[in-house]
Amino acid sequence: MTISIAHLGPPGTYTEQAAVFYVNWLAKNMGIEAILCPYPSIAQSLQAVAVGDTQLAVVPVENSLEGSVTMTMDTLWQLDELQIQFALVMPIVHTLISCATSLDSIKTVYSHPQALAQCQGWLQQFLPNVQVIPNNSTTEALQKLEQDWTIAAIASTRAAQLYNLPILASGINDYPENCTRFWVVSQPKTKAVEDISSTGASHTSLAFSVPANVPGALLKPLQVFAQLGINLSRIESRPTKRSLGEYLFFIDVESNATSAEMLSALADLKKYIEVLKIFGSYNILPITALEL
Amino acid sequence: MTISIAHLGPPGTYTEQAAVFYVNWLAKNMGIEAILCPYPSIAQSLQAVAVGDTQLAVVPVENSLEGSVTMTMDTLWQLDELQIQFALVMPIVHTLISCATSLDSIKTVYSHPQALAQCQGWLQQFLPNVQVIPNNSTTEALQKLEQDWTIAAIASTRAAQLYNLPILASGINDYPENCTRFWVVSQPKTKAVEDISSTGASHTSLAFSVPANVPGALLKPLQVFAQLGINLSRIESRPTKRSLGEYLFFIDVESNATSAEMLSALADLKKYIEVLKIFGSYNILPITALEL
Repeated sequence: MTISIAHLGPPGTYTEQAAVFYVNWLAKNMGIEAILCPYPSIAQSLQAVAVGDTQLAVVPVENSLEGSVTMTMDTLWQLDELQIQFALVMPIVHTLISCATSLDSIKTVYSHPQALAQCQGWLQQFLPNVQVIPNNSTTEALQKLEQDWTIAAIASTRAAQLYNLPILASGINDYPENCTRFWVVSQPKTKAVEDISSTGASHTSLAFSVPANVPGALLKPLQVFAQLGINLSRIESRPTKRSLGEYLFFIDVESNATSAEMLSALADLKKYIEVLKIFGSYNILPITALEL
Repeated sequence: MTISIAHLGPPGTYTEQAAVFYVNWLAKNMGIEAILCPYPSIAQSLQAVAVGDTQLAVVPVENSLEGSVTMTMDTLWQLDELQIQFALVMPIVHTLISCATSLDSIKTVYSHPQALAQCQGWLQQFLPNVQVIPNNSTTEALQKLEQDWTIAAIASTRAAQLYNLPILASGINDYPENCTRFWVVSQPKTKAVEDISSTGASHTSLAFSVPANVPGALLKPLQVFAQLGINLSRIESRPTKRSLGEYLFFIDVESNATSAEMLSALADLKKYIEVLKIFGSYNILPITALEL
């Protein structure tokens, strides 16, 4: 059996790196073969799963420096029916890739806005006068580097290797503890996925809207979890897109959706919210630097 | 007296539009003259006020479709001492600006990532095959349009007028109720600012960090406000940048920081949090489409 996995491309993005890790993990632990399918955006990766073009997608959810990847959250809420199978947590080490012989000759630096933001201190210190240009992915600018030695790109070591380009500086992220969390998502009832999905899942992700302009509207849902001793590992608000000041809340809880306390919490929760979407229960696979 | 106002430039950005509104408001209501100082980033606009290069800055905080402007929140937390004097809420109407004679000849669309995100449905429907390229501001690409008739930019009607460029399509945002909230910030004790800051301010913004990995860590601060009948109009989490899963919380409350209930809430709050930063109390100035 071969399964297909959508991800933000082209090859060499951090999302592809996480997807490659997952492909290896599937082969080693499940004897399952998987192929990667690059898409130009996160939204298109998720849509590929929703319409059945691929069986899985690997998408970034949150970075320890730059916070939530809002495109992932907004698309999951919109597509409605996708389920999270696994979370992957991957260390992020940025490198400066360029054909320049020294930092002095660099005039322009390209990368994805999140990567640029994660290296802004380093850029201010070592390249204070360069022009910084955002791209759709960390790898988009790599093909320009050989033609123009005055430009550089911020991407992964893997990207430099894949494109056979020189690394000018390594580990240029402002904080060494830089991690990104990814989700592996599928349609709810894919046979291939049932075989590989985790048993005894430790985390559940869900999102809900609350009645507009009611004082304490968020407090009551949070109390439901606290009273049942369920810990929240993350809470994030997103606009409903209806009007300024109306929000959806995305919550990760440290419990399985089928546990007794969660069943009770979910039943209670329905009294205080408008729309509830449960994105599934899953385990976390940490990726060590050695495995990359 | 003339005061100086930093904003994300160049002229023609939505932030400049909000700043121009505020300049007119100051002249009309306070008899105060103000000049605008464009900066290449939001962070640099805020730093200009922090080091005293300008007396005020106008910065975007939140859009009704795309959510928080994380750069504003992260910089305010980092700079520590800046105070909010006013909130401005401005309707956003995006236009497609191009020298092309029809949509068919457009191959590339440039804009700020938030503007591109706010028009993604329209782009998918009317320009499904164009390349979409993010820029540092909505106006960055405008100077290229006259040379290359195959490119278009998404920006404001004001930007098209300022640069004397044709509008190909108007009101192309996916949701008509598209608004952005801006903050006018200053140093805490600027004499010019004391004269113009609002009396009887209706809202207060603050941020705090909570002890790591304590169940219900966010619940207790929220209960403090709920028990005193103080309504929260917004809650937003941001990573502490220390490690994945540790957050700061940014909260807007519908109360003045000097009111009896808020003084009581702030005293209580200190029991449950690590670091508290109060960004000040302020009133909201709504901007109508007619005033733009």
